[in-house]
Amino acid sequence: MEKKELRIGLIGYQFMGKAHSHAYRDIPFFFDVEAKPVLKVVCGRNEEAVQQAAEKMGFESYETDWRKVVERDDIDVIDIVTPNNTHAEIAIAAAKAGKHVITEKPLAMNLDEAQRMHAAVTENHVIHMVCHNYRYVPAVQLAKQLVASGKLGEIYHFRARYLQDFIMSPSFPLTWRLDQKVSGSGALGDIAAHSLDIARFLVGEINEVVATAKTFIKERPIGSMTGGLSAKVSEGKMAPVTVDDATAIIAKFENGALGTFEATRFAGGNRNRNEFEINGEHGSVRWNMENMNQLEVYFAHDEEGLQGFRTIDVTEASHPYVGSYWAAGHMIGYEHTFIHLLYEFLQGIARGEQPKPDFADGLRNQAVLTAIEQSIQQQRWVNVEELLVKS
Amino acid sequence: MEKKELRIGLIGYQFMGKAHSHAYRDIPFFFDVEAKPVLKVVCGRNEEAVQQAAEKMGFESYETDWRKVVERDDIDVIDIVTPNNTHAEIAIAAAKAGKHVITEKPLAMNLDEAQRMHAAVTENHVIHMVCHNYRYVPAVQLAKQLVASGKLGEIYHFRARYLQDFIMSPSFPLTWRLDQKVSGSGALGDIAAHSLDIARFLVGEINEVVATAKTFIKERPIGSMTGGLSAKVSEGKMAPVTVDDATAIIAKFENGALGTFEATRFAGGNRNRNEFEINGEHGSVRWNMENMNQLEVYFAHDEEGLQGFRTIDVTEASHPYVGSYWAAGHMIGYEHTFIHLLYEFLQGIARGEQPKPDFADGLRNQAVLTAIEQSIQQQRWVNVEELLVKS
Amino acid sequence: MEKKELRIGLIGYQFMGKAHSHAYRDIPFFFDVEAKPVLKVVCGRNEEAVQQAAEKMGFESYETDWRKVVERDDIDVIDIVTPNNTHAEIAIAAAKAGKHVITEKPLAMNLDEAQRMHAAVTENHVIHMVCHNYRYVPAVQLAKQLVASGKLGEIYHFRARYLQDFIMSPSFPLTWRLDQKVSGSGALGDIAAHSLDIARFLVGEINEVVATAKTFIKERPIGSMTGGLSAKVSEGKMAPVTVDDATAIIAKFENGALGTFEATRFAGGNRNRNEFEINGEHGSVRWNMENMNQLEVYFAHDEEGLQGFRTIDVTEASHPYVGSYWAAGHMIGYEHTFIHLLYEFLQGIARGEQPKPDFADGLRNQAVLTAIEQSIQQQRWVNVEELLVKS
Amino acid sequence: MEKKELRIGLIGYQFMGKAHSHAYRDIPFFFDVEAKPVLKVVCGRNEEAVQQAAEKMGFESYETDWRKVVERDDIDVIDIVTPNNTHAEIAIAAAKAGKHVITEKPLAMNLDEAQRMHAAVTENHVIHMVCHNYRYVPAVQLAKQLVASGKLGEIYHFRARYLQDFIMSPSFPLTWRLDQKVSGSGALGDIAAHSLDIARFLVGEINEVVATAKTFIKERPIGSMTGGLSAKVSEGKMAPVTVDDATAIIAKFENGALGTFEATRFAGGNRNRNEFEINGEHGSVRWNMENMNQLEVYFAHDEEGLQGFRTIDVTEASHPYVGSYWAAGHMIGYEHTFIHLLYEFLQGIARGEQPKPDFADGLRNQAVLTAIEQSIQQQRWVNVEELLVKS
Repeated sequence: MEKKELRIGLIGYQFMGKAHSHAYRDIPFFFDVEAKPVLKVVCGRNEEAVQQAAEKMGFESYETDWRKVVERDDIDVIDIVTPNNTHAEIAIAAAKAGKHVITEKPLAMNLDEAQRMHAAVTENHVIHMVCHNYRYVPAVQLAKQLVASGKLGEIYHFRARYLQDFIMSPSFPLTWRLDQKVSGSGALGDIAAHSLDIARFLVGEINEVVATAKTFIKERPIGSMTGGLSAKVSEGKMAPVTVDDATAIIAKFENGALGTFEATRFAGGNRNRNEFEINGEHGSVRWNMENMNQLEVYFAHDEEGLQGFRTIDVTEASHPYVGSYWAAGHMIGYEHTFIHLLYEFLQGIARGEQPKPDFADGLRNQAVLTAIEQSIQQQRWVNVEELLVKS
Repeated sequence: MEKKELRIGLIGYQFMGKAHSHAYRDIPFFFDVEAKPVLKVVCGRNEEAVQQAAEKMGFESYETDWRKVVERDDIDVIDIVTPNNTHAEIAIAAAKAGKHVITEKPLAMNLDEAQRMHAAVTENHVIHMVCHNYRYVPAVQLAKQLVASGKLGEIYHFRARYLQDFIMSPSFPLTWRLDQKVSGSGALGDIAAHSLDIARFLVGEINEVVATAKTFIKERPIGSMTGGLSAKVSEGKMAPVTVDDATAIIAKFENGALGTFEATRFAGGNRNRNEFEINGEHGSVRWNMENMNQLEVYFAHDEEGLQGFRTIDVTEASHPYVGSYWAAGHMIGYEHTFIHLLYEFLQGIARGEQPKPDFADGLRNQAVLTAIEQSIQQQRWVNVEELLVKS
Repeated sequence: MEKKELRIGLIGYQFMGKAHSHAYRDIPFFFDVEAKPVLKVVCGRNEEAVQQAAEKMGFESYETDWRKVVERDDIDVIDIVTPNNTHAEIAIAAAKAGKHVITEKPLAMNLDEAQRMHAAVTENHVIHMVCHNYRYVPAVQLAKQLVASGKLGEIYHFRARYLQDFIMSPSFPLTWRLDQKVSGSGALGDIAAHSLDIARFLVGEINEVVATAKTFIKERPIGSMTGGLSAKVSEGKMAPVTVDDATAIIAKFENGALGTFEATRFAGGNRNRNEFEINGEHGSVRWNMENMNQLEVYFAHDEEGLQGFRTIDVTEASHPYVGSYWAAGHMIGYEHTFIHLLYEFLQGIARGEQPKPDFADGLRNQAVLTAIEQSIQQQRWVNVEELLVKS
Repeated sequence: MEKKELRIGLIGYQFMGKAHSHAYRDIPFFFDVEAKPVLKVVCGRNEEAVQQAAEKMGFESYETDWRKVVERDDIDVIDIVTPNNTHAEIAIAAAKAGKHVITEKPLAMNLDEAQRMHAAVTENHVIHMVCHNYRYVPAVQLAKQLVASGKLGEIYHFRARYLQDFIMSPSFPLTWRLDQKVSGSGALGDIAAHSLDIARFLVGEINEVVATAKTFIKERPIGSMTGGLSAKVSEGKMAPVTVDDATAIIAKFENGALGTFEATRFAGGNRNRNEFEINGEHGSVRWNMENMNQLEVYFAHDEEGLQGFRTIDVTEASHPYVGSYWAAGHMIGYEHTFIHLLYEFLQGIARGEQPKPDFADGLRNQAVLTAIEQSIQQQRWVNVEELLVKS
């Protein structure tokens, strides 16, 4: 029997486009997925570049106008990896066209967009996801199992830091990631968004936040991204940086836990230090993307005198997802987060079941981001629930 | 020629009393101190216990009323290691009696006390210190040298966490450390105070704060400390916990740096994780009391491709203080923080020079603590400078 | 212009078969390789299993007799991932048929086989490699650059440990990996072989060895591998283990360096701890597969007082191979070692240049393994060079 | 009731003299020792230096001839911290004079000396110890408890490395530590001796060894130690280094365990990396002097999927010795190893019980060292038991 095929239309082809394409290619190799992805079309505005990308990444065709992709009959899935200010329009059009849809995070530029996007996918009964890929690190999934099973007891603390340093040089150009109109925010939407999603995934809803933000370098030469997190100066002209370089947040969770978050692109020496710790009544977990295959776990009920954080290599056959790979102790890397998330997306479509994180998560995350932005501007505590009610 | 002697009167004899006494004994063994400490008298209210302590710790005599110690002619130095609500009265009396004075941290219960204490020591021209011992870890001193030399450039971030877990069990009793009337606050004054002092030492003055606090266990059986951080239940009766179990703080520094702080006694598995990281324009440092002899240092100007945090064993002859001990790679422990601080105290007295951190630091730290308390109560940003001006 | 294609015939399809197939699929996605691999045929004795493997891994066809694959005109490359006792026959036949050939390590069962294999590939002018994949970890390549550039100066020490624990349970069955007739040896050929190859790669030739070996569990139930390093008992019968569970080796290098090696499958808690340290006149490097993206580097000429091992995330665009992936700080995993090695293999074929490690390395490695085996049996130092001359 | 006093005569006053003196001073402060040490006399050949040392370290008097100390009626204990070639003569004289005796390690220069020393202390019924201080790290004591309780099961592996770098510069002078006539050997007797003693302590007797040694720098300027592990060149003249810079050893234990050892002073960046790992049937332990308060422990019987090395802070009240210090999570340093060992020495004398490690251990250690030396010279396996029988 032939497997169902899902024909992918990928809108965008840079850092995240590469990550998603690779994942689609790898999924059937490693997993018994019920619907096989077909790399049908990739879309970008620069024809020469998108053509090259199509060839390199193995797409059957390319387009330069995303509307054409959304309209094509031979496309089942729209995968959006373009800058943040384009997510809403594309996703809504895709949903209306009956396509299943996944977007890179953050879902939207603001709460209004997020709500319209959420309405579109639910009204049109398509499967939808937002690509908070760090949920799908096996060690993070194991942390989820520990929390869900009650092994950590009541949760007291969630603390997260996401530290990068790729824009510390004043000569790093002002790209879309530093332009508020395109990206919505800086460290906040780009990386704090990941920590906040993990917090919601592992601990629960955030009720109230207070935050501040800093832009250390106020003006930069105009330029563009060149792949990954690299960029080049495109002209001599300077322009003001309109996003935060760093954001610090204190949060109160619905269940009484206390959350602290910090996200910065000015933490020299930390290339991509995405880390969190949870402390509960009966135990703690610690995780750090730099050693992404390891989860540190403490159990208060271990024998007295022999208590301590265990460093678990989350690479056993019994651990989430990793049984499909190599052998215990054989590490996997960053790209596997996309493999796992997109595997769940494909499975969800094949089975007609909505996987997580979906647009409802994206919307709730957006409300948290909006609350943080208001807190930064107004220098006060902001209630997340009230924002959702008001809007 | 005989060395000058400094006759010590120690008020209190528990955890910190032991740490201070031991330090006085060790100082002349390891350092060429210009004034030799003499353990003259130790003071406590329980005669049997203080007599035993005197014998064990090597004091010539004991008293049960601190006023007698302050009045004694044969005492040059009053060292106060009693609970926080007694610091002010003793220190002011000591200063008025012309004794040099050192107190455990935090300096006082509130800003008013702190100001009166500061006035007393300055008016009476005695040498004064507040025992923020973590400043005197050699690795922290090395961090100070790096900041002061400009090797890190402009400072962008200071982030600190002080994580403990010794009161997580609901059966841990309500001792003075959990009683607001005696301790002033919980995790805030006990451990966040250390991080805040280090922040001021390494980065500069804090201007503005926002904070929140949590008390996870609201009621405990009444009891008392039994040494170190251990305690025993003294009676069946329950009483409300009146201090914070955990506090989270965001701070803005005068020089533009962004600070984040978290202190908790509910971080299971973290016995005494006192850690900070500084990110500057040209480099970063990381430190953690669990590996107190190591400083991690990153220099942005290291050769490309060979950049990374260096783990420096701060045990070389050229490093602060440690040349007086063993050999490179031979670790020192917690008690040496007191040795170094009290060495500077004795040297300061001998030379008539005021060492740091002094009561002015204690006062400024108190203003920060007060601002944090107000921020917690009033759920808003509080300006530290304004508090100092107002009071 | 169409790229040259290289049609792959893969002999074997289990753990290593999966790793090689995946690598061939990924190479053109990430690298601009001059010859594109085509997954033409996979071969295995169990028809049902090999058919499934072909489908899963994306091969166009399958065979059950390796001789047929070697004879096929539409095959350019023979890739051998079958147990060690089959390498020689297949590789020699492939070379004689004019196919380029790569085998899993160790090259052969003994020195005689290795010499015949080396003769076959050189006489038939085909490109040949032996799959010592750990050479191709970017951090190991960076270590090589540091040694080659003279930055470490004269090399004094190489010390390596390869620790696993997957056969510690007495109920783990006797599979081919524990049967001397099929595998040649146990921990020695399976994992020490990797450390010895890295030693030769980074430091130079090994002249003389002394070694001992232990088999802690002498008898096991008969069984078979089930993928990765897992296995199942196939029948109740017990049989003697005929290979080493652990081997310890001291080695003298031609250039005067002192080498120590230990390989064991009985180091509980170490799933796959493959680590080495090099100490040279001017610096040291440390590496550990558990954190495979990091290289720790020490430079003796760093400023006094600021010396220490740097932890380098070998994920920068300037580092070997990783520029083709994600962004600095984004980790890669185990499978990339195969991607890099097989990329070099394909490039070598496309350009007619012999890449490393080749059959000459395999032969030299085999001589070291043989010397170690003799040393274990005869309880004496054995000279590697003499073995090569003698044979 | 007055406590018994034990009057100490310390022979030698440099690095180890300082460590021992400090320990004697600290023992009654921290522990309820049954016999109080009195620092009666310190002895050294350089009168000015020894007089200063006496004052600094708190000795009542000094001598320049050790024979006088041994003869003095007011001395109960002779503590020998002079270079290795003087241990035998002093210890034997002390024993004959009825003094309890402790020497720094290694016990002697050779097996004959060790046997005569052992005979002298047993014939004269004095208490005796050899100062293998690393046994007395609390984490090492905890490891001992784990092994002794059977929690690790049958022991398969002991692997140790002791890495230093203090003599790597060719300009580091030839001091007594590099002169075979005074020190007996280099890295072998100085640091491998510690690892070998820990191996015997934790695993059991060593039966057979094979080893090799290297001297990387053959000639150095003549000089002398200046405290700790520092030294200064005393004259321009060069002289040959007569000891090993590095030694590598493979050992077979009586109980079937496999041992590997490496000791070197040429491991750049490793100031004092003294580490070991034990793998047993049911678990493993890892320890490293650089983080001396932590023991990593793995239990094979932990729940599947949650297995991993636990990092235990060996600072709890329930852990060996540390209950006498500060509080959980408060680190102790190198000097405490001497405090614990000398505490046991004093307790042993007070109670008339022989503590460990004693001269019998020193003798057995010497036999292992001698076997290693013979193995190095003769390039063959050497049986330890046979040496003891023969001699």
